[in-house]
Amino acid sequence: MIQPMTTTRVDIQLPDWLRRELPELASRSYPSDDARMEVALRAASENIRHETGGPFGAAIFNKQDGSLVSVGVNLVTSSGLSMTHAEVVAIAMAQAELKTFDLGKGELAHLQLATSAEPCSMCIGAIHWSGLKSIIASARDEDVRAIGFDEGHKPADWIAHFASHGIEFTPDVLRQRGIEVLQMYARRGGHIYNAGGSGA
Amino acid sequence: MIQPMTTTRVDIQLPDWLRRELPELASRSYPSDDARMEVALRAASENIRHETGGPFGAAIFNKQDGSLVSVGVNLVTSSGLSMTHAEVVAIAMAQAELKTFDLGKGELAHLQLATSAEPCSMCIGAIHWSGLKSIIASARDEDVRAIGFDEGHKPADWIAHFASHGIEFTPDVLRQRGIEVLQMYARRGGHIYNAGGSGA
Repeated sequence: MIQPMTTTRVDIQLPDWLRRELPELASRSYPSDDARMEVALRAASENIRHETGGPFGAAIFNKQDGSLVSVGVNLVTSSGLSMTHAEVVAIAMAQAELKTFDLGKGELAHLQLATSAEPCSMCIGAIHWSGLKSIIASARDEDVRAIGFDEGHKPADWIAHFASHGIEFTPDVLRQRGIEVLQMYARRGGHIYNAGGSGA
Repeated sequence: MIQPMTTTRVDIQLPDWLRRELPELASRSYPSDDARMEVALRAASENIRHETGGPFGAAIFNKQDGSLVSVGVNLVTSSGLSMTHAEVVAIAMAQAELKTFDLGKGELAHLQLATSAEPCSMCIGAIHWSGLKSIIASARDEDVRAIGFDEGHKPADWIAHFASHGIEFTPDVLRQRGIEVLQMYARRGGHIYNAGGSGA
């Protein structure tokens, strides 16, 4: 046996710096895609600065009133959990906050996820299951791969498939800013944590 | 605002019944694919019986010595978190147990995930990021869809893509048992929790 099995719970926690910023972030209103993307991009760049994970941030908003519902950042290297991508963390926090696994029902149909980079193969599936109906992204898949991350194998027509399920995807929101965040991470020698021995 | 934002952590916990069974499960050895799949299938059927989530179970083993590393069950309806599929839970518990997000490095390359049903779109991506190199599944995608779950949009060639990344996938291990578990859930009127208002 590699070691005795004792784990029966896993905690996903926002980093201290983000927890401290939440009250102020939540007190503001975010009326436009650009304003909402700013939150995701700032979370990504602060996550790099604080060295609490990969160069990715995400946030969920109520588009109808512009309020913030949750924020997530990539926690892979700090949590030791490969599924803690920014989108998954933001979705988990929103579902815990709103006490439902379905962020697409009733009045929640107005929720929007802003992510600092196009979702990877896992996050496309996570969005599918989350119920979210509106997604905006900054950097493209190719921008993420350009700094060395293997985004996994995505169906070529995932955006059309999202559309056929009522999920609206808007790319390139403040894309240049998204690219700059990724490149800052690469310049600082940030950990490219691909699985299979190349990363950990 | 839908409600004030206060969530900063999310807990993923194994159900009490599974926690109680862990010491005995971990004391045994699992030398074959069939023996390992039995653990995943039993977790799935007990999860139905205890009404702690969807009809899915998964477990991670060290193939080299036959030891159990982690067990997961679907917790979507009990945790309120859409990403708590059995595979994701088993991966998270293994990563917490072994203190690494890369289950493919060094001696961990011998780890194998047994899942009671073929992975959905999200779990294909989660496996990619986990580092796991060996996956066995019982029920097929079509068996899961047959009871009403929308498994998401999977790349047609995902198994070949896994192979090209050194991930071995073995389907149909005790498939009939896997189908029976799914059908038991359907017969009992188990919650088919698809997102977007059809489930929650």
